[in-house]
Amino acid sequence: MESRAGLAAAPRALPYYVAFSQLLGLTVVATTGAWLGLYRGGIAWEGALQFNAHPLCMVIGLIFLQGDALLVYRVFRNEARRTTKVLHGLLHVFAFIIALVGMVAVFDYHREQGYADLYSLHSWCGVLGFVLYFVQWLVGFSFFLFPGAAFSLRSRYRPQHIFFGAAIFLLSVGTALLGLKEALLFKLGAKYSTFEAEGVLANVLGLLLVGFGGTVLYILTRPDWKRPPQAEEQALSMDFKTLTEGDSPSSQ
Amino acid sequence: MESRAGLAAAPRALPYYVAFSQLLGLTVVATTGAWLGLYRGGIAWEGALQFNAHPLCMVIGLIFLQGDALLVYRVFRNEARRTTKVLHGLLHVFAFIIALVGMVAVFDYHREQGYADLYSLHSWCGVLGFVLYFVQWLVGFSFFLFPGAAFSLRSRYRPQHIFFGAAIFLLSVGTALLGLKEALLFKLGAKYSTFEAEGVLANVLGLLLVGFGGTVLYILTRPDWKRPPQAEEQALSMDFKTLTEGDSPSSQ
Repeated sequence: MESRAGLAAAPRALPYYVAFSQLLGLTVVATTGAWLGLYRGGIAWEGALQFNAHPLCMVIGLIFLQGDALLVYRVFRNEARRTTKVLHGLLHVFAFIIALVGMVAVFDYHREQGYADLYSLHSWCGVLGFVLYFVQWLVGFSFFLFPGAAFSLRSRYRPQHIFFGAAIFLLSVGTALLGLKEALLFKLGAKYSTFEAEGVLANVLGLLLVGFGGTVLYILTRPDWKRPPQAEEQALSMDFKTLTEGDSPSSQ
Repeated sequence: MESRAGLAAAPRALPYYVAFSQLLGLTVVATTGAWLGLYRGGIAWEGALQFNAHPLCMVIGLIFLQGDALLVYRVFRNEARRTTKVLHGLLHVFAFIIALVGMVAVFDYHREQGYADLYSLHSWCGVLGFVLYFVQWLVGFSFFLFPGAAFSLRSRYRPQHIFFGAAIFLLSVGTALLGLKEALLFKLGAKYSTFEAEGVLANVLGLLLVGFGGTVLYILTRPDWKRPPQAEEQALSMDFKTLTEGDSPSSQ
């Protein structure tokens, strides 16, 4: 790998994969919008259309923004570590707030229509994922952004933070698929098997969700695409050294 | 890490995590059996009960056995590499055959009942996963078990094989969740929201599936739980050296 004045060149294929992930992510959001607009009457905060705010907010927050927050360390390879960390944390805050609006929408809608809450596998997975996401953010903030955490604690927690980050993202993708399927079967019922246009569009949306999840996971897990150590940071901050130690099997 | 006569001691926590994964996996299979027995009339190869062979075979093959095939390199840490490879390949063959029986069951059932095939998101994800699984096995066999493949090719393909192995396993878990949800909504419909016993049991099965997938993924991705290089193998076989080079970012 080429290195110049402490800046490591990005792996050649990485930008193409990142661009492809963004194209897929935006297509997921647009297809969700198209599905809700074409077949579900659009979105409103009052009445029956309030439900539609739920899938759109969850897809923007817990799929697209959460996925992008995970990619921050792959995309910003040469920016100061603290800037990248703050961006990672902020993207997760935006994702969380948008998802919270989506959660309020569905509970509000259920209350107004007199529907039961939290009976389905989609809702169980959703609540599990949402709680884990919140806890992961709080613990991540306390360890990595709050100045007090000991270096050794950070280094031991970091691999767990990365694993649970990826796992919660994948759980979010799975939960979105379950929700999509639920929305389809409730409305289409037996008509689903006649290849109705809505069903086909929603299936395509499901495959796009799987594709986005898979692409983000691929970019995250390629060992040679990990953020390189930086000369500047190694000199300026013990922080970085201890944070990356967790990566190496030999340090355990 | 302690090393004695070329044998590396297993990380202390690993056996507990493996035992927990097996407990979860067997509970998933048992719960699937209980669900089909208690609420779906059991299993037969003729008539309406033929459908029930589908979820049971897919869960045994593409969830439990596929997951265990991925864990082989973590569990058999000191056996000869070739023995471990053959076991990994064989477990995938068993998984594939059992899953194939499950696929035949559902297509047979659909034909006899006059139902449409391949219209749902569950079936699209299932066919995608099944085809990828077959291709992955063929390519894996040609590269790693067939004697002809060049060492450099093996080393370049290995990280892709590992990534796609994990991704196909996760897609299988997601597809199982979609299928479970489909089976519930087709039968229970609006009764699902009244917390019917079958719905609650199936939701618990869904969470168990998520738990098994997450535990297998955790064991696979812990960097310090990877299979260590072995003195014996390093001396006997170039094969091993080239296979592991792909792990190191610096070798790219």
